[in-house]
Amino acid sequence: MNITVFEYGDEMIVVDCGLSFPTDDMLGIDLVIPDVTYLKENQSKLKGFFITHGHEDHIGALPYILKEVNAPIFATTLTMGLIEHKLKEHKLEINTDRVVVDFGCVVKLGAFSVEFIKTNHSIVDAAALAIYTPAGVVVHTGDFKVDYTPVYGDAIDLQRFAELGKKGVLALLCDSTNAERPGFTASEKTLGKTFDTIFHDNEMRRIIVATFASNVDRVQQIINTAHTYGRKVVVEGRSMVNIIQTAMELNRLSVPENTLIDVDEIPNYPEEKTVIITTGSQGESMAALSRMAGGTHKKIKITPGDTIIFSSHPIPGNEMAVTKVINDLLLKGAEVIFQDAHVSGHACKEEIKLLYTLTQPQYAIPVHGEYKHLKAQEEIAKELGITSDRIFILRSGNVLEIGEESAQITGDVTCGAIYVDGLGVGDVGTTVMRERQNLAEDGIVVVTLVIDSYTGEYLAGPTITSRGFVYMKDAEDLLEEATALAYEKLEKLRAQGVTDWGRLKGALKDTLGDLFRKRTKRNPMILSIFEEV
Amino acid sequence: MNITVFEYGDEMIVVDCGLSFPTDDMLGIDLVIPDVTYLKENQSKLKGFFITHGHEDHIGALPYILKEVNAPIFATTLTMGLIEHKLKEHKLEINTDRVVVDFGCVVKLGAFSVEFIKTNHSIVDAAALAIYTPAGVVVHTGDFKVDYTPVYGDAIDLQRFAELGKKGVLALLCDSTNAERPGFTASEKTLGKTFDTIFHDNEMRRIIVATFASNVDRVQQIINTAHTYGRKVVVEGRSMVNIIQTAMELNRLSVPENTLIDVDEIPNYPEEKTVIITTGSQGESMAALSRMAGGTHKKIKITPGDTIIFSSHPIPGNEMAVTKVINDLLLKGAEVIFQDAHVSGHACKEEIKLLYTLTQPQYAIPVHGEYKHLKAQEEIAKELGITSDRIFILRSGNVLEIGEESAQITGDVTCGAIYVDGLGVGDVGTTVMRERQNLAEDGIVVVTLVIDSYTGEYLAGPTITSRGFVYMKDAEDLLEEATALAYEKLEKLRAQGVTDWGRLKGALKDTLGDLFRKRTKRNPMILSIFEEV
Repeated sequence: MNITVFEYGDEMIVVDCGLSFPTDDMLGIDLVIPDVTYLKENQSKLKGFFITHGHEDHIGALPYILKEVNAPIFATTLTMGLIEHKLKEHKLEINTDRVVVDFGCVVKLGAFSVEFIKTNHSIVDAAALAIYTPAGVVVHTGDFKVDYTPVYGDAIDLQRFAELGKKGVLALLCDSTNAERPGFTASEKTLGKTFDTIFHDNEMRRIIVATFASNVDRVQQIINTAHTYGRKVVVEGRSMVNIIQTAMELNRLSVPENTLIDVDEIPNYPEEKTVIITTGSQGESMAALSRMAGGTHKKIKITPGDTIIFSSHPIPGNEMAVTKVINDLLLKGAEVIFQDAHVSGHACKEEIKLLYTLTQPQYAIPVHGEYKHLKAQEEIAKELGITSDRIFILRSGNVLEIGEESAQITGDVTCGAIYVDGLGVGDVGTTVMRERQNLAEDGIVVVTLVIDSYTGEYLAGPTITSRGFVYMKDAEDLLEEATALAYEKLEKLRAQGVTDWGRLKGALKDTLGDLFRKRTKRNPMILSIFEEV
Repeated sequence: MNITVFEYGDEMIVVDCGLSFPTDDMLGIDLVIPDVTYLKENQSKLKGFFITHGHEDHIGALPYILKEVNAPIFATTLTMGLIEHKLKEHKLEINTDRVVVDFGCVVKLGAFSVEFIKTNHSIVDAAALAIYTPAGVVVHTGDFKVDYTPVYGDAIDLQRFAELGKKGVLALLCDSTNAERPGFTASEKTLGKTFDTIFHDNEMRRIIVATFASNVDRVQQIINTAHTYGRKVVVEGRSMVNIIQTAMELNRLSVPENTLIDVDEIPNYPEEKTVIITTGSQGESMAALSRMAGGTHKKIKITPGDTIIFSSHPIPGNEMAVTKVINDLLLKGAEVIFQDAHVSGHACKEEIKLLYTLTQPQYAIPVHGEYKHLKAQEEIAKELGITSDRIFILRSGNVLEIGEESAQITGDVTCGAIYVDGLGVGDVGTTVMRERQNLAEDGIVVVTLVIDSYTGEYLAGPTITSRGFVYMKDAEDLLEEATALAYEKLEKLRAQGVTDWGRLKGALKDTLGDLFRKRTKRNPMILSIFEEV
């Protein structure tokens, strides 16, 4: 959920507007977006959204946030292409102003001027931003790596970073994702050779390559190799098709004529003359590759004649899902290559040092990555002679006031995670989430009771029904015991003159809770529903 | 869940009896144990359990399985010590025969003779088994590595493997866990030097080491270094205390006098003169280290004066949990070392080749590890000249009939996973699990209705209550709409003369399900409860 506000006087701009994907404990949640209460409260100050690149964790929340606060979007070509696709889905394209910015161009909005600087990353058209303000120049790298030999376009504009450094950079916000890794990240282009070798070694087999849909350069190299080996290319998976379509329209991907074929045309070509480029390299259960591996893909069947290349590395948390897909593919007799066919899109230690050395920032603000990665970049900054008092590791919501003279954290603004579940944005909060966790763990027991509103007598029930707790048919004894105990407890309370529903329900919860804990060591949710007749 | 049956004529023995830990989709489950229907059906044939080492995935199901089928247990000293601890917890120690076996000794049970052979692993007293039968000798490595310089006891008995190979080994069941990794696994002893260096560099700080409770050699080395540096040692975490206790009683761990202190004594010593050895290296949420990191540990507070060493590597699936603990520790200002303080307990490619080359098996049966690891060992076996028809990758339940003349998979026996949830063993099956998944994803909506048993009139309700679906206070409109719709549907059906509860409930489910899908894109479980008065 990358989103940063830069504010000067009565004006502000936002850099990036990303979503995050739910962790395992966020049951039933589809997406997580940032709480932008602060933007809503300051809508009149907001001049624009500046987007560094087209990955979901940088653009994904835009369609949700734009429904709350409106401002123009500034981004490079492919980034804007991907954003526009989202705006269309959410029917926002008419009411959202958009400006496509070229590298080297400067957008002036009140006190702010923002320059887009060419970088390299695992998606084409990634940009760093130089944000000029009366207080000084702030450089935000976005996600980046240094690639001297990129597949598409130019290498990162190191000269521009150097120029800015010469003139004086107030603060550097630098990508920390790989700050623990020594050395340099390899060039994307090194994979061209890898693909050539693999295609050569598998000349008599069908090849399936799974990679990130957004890595257009990767797709370009696979297509290049396929073309060299005279293979037709099939693109499979909704997001892969979308992005390739967008990249082709914007001239970020060049496909030789008569190379792409439709998935339905596969049977018309010899297997060893086709390549399938597919989504699902992270083991996502609904992605095309998982469906192939599980035998549920309608059009592509895995056979012992297939070689599947994972051109990816599992994102932390996805290791088991990826292993499951690999196992399933191997079980179908296919060969699987899941090592050495990927390079990272993030700068390692030496590249981070290079950026610091070129820009010579007065203040360092490590960004992007887990807290441990930010700390790792802090160590790098210290090695380069930046003293602790000039390094700020910010937590979400922190307000850093920064000027030539001094910098300090002066407060916090509202921030947090808003859950998106189906059509609901923010309607699943901590209460509902806690209920889901309780339900997931031990299920639910419902106690129903019908009460005579005149006499207070129990006309029917207590009836006990459970779901997700025990298999009811096998647990008749337990449920009978629970029913008898509930009845006894209710009668006793009635004899004592207790009629308050809250007290009765509380007593049922305690009594049944104790029984279930004793008999099963489980804590199902206990829900009492009383009906008055 | 490692468990293998070896059968000859009317006799059988079992090697290992392990549990597995639930995956993310096994909601609320504590443990998973193997389905031993086949053992129950053949109780009279069963001669004994032979256990290779004391890890949970090799011994953990014993207390559950022994309640179903009884047979004596054969194991080495520490392995048996850990098993006995479990038997006591389950009150099984009186009815279970146990034989502690030394390395080199042979246990004769009918047609079977079983020899325990010394190996190395991340737990002391690990054994391979040579199983002598009239059909030939089968060698089962258990989990192993080759450690020429082990911390406790001897190196793996390579000479014995060679001797067996000279005489002729029918089949080798060899550990595949690291079969994808090139080279050799480093000796456990190399970590002694690592700890020395870290302790030296952190002389003025408190040190906390998180590692696997069962890795007694690791604990020994930490204690040795602590002693060298004049530090007192605190052991924290229930399983760590248990295992260290057992290992000391059995002389598998030697602790210098006046070195161990109780956690309550920490305040009596300078911080830089203490070391805390703790559980939680896998980020387990209830383990001691996680509680320290989260600030909920009653006796140990993390401060900027602490250095925490992760002497472990995240087991696949635990990466995110470990990262969370690291982040929390860093946020408290502590220093964290989480690289290079661990070696694996499993054999890499070259060690596997060594075992094959010494034993020269007629048949290869890769065991232990994911399917992809078994396939990787298959590749190794092929490289060593074992032809495909002599390599068997078995799936759970497969029956392999093997003799000098031939080997083939001839069928399957019942197998599978039994869930343990609290006190329930096997009572949570697919129905309850599916209910929990449904509840976890979108919650539950309960519709209650009171019906007059004479007139069929609705006396109260339909009342709609939800949990884990929407926050009820914010969703009044939706729930009112649902109530009105349910009422309308019920009245309509009553007018049509429909009185069958099944049909009424089915109609409610469809009607409300459609409404919720349309309004929220969610699919809560819909539970209708009717009461008759």
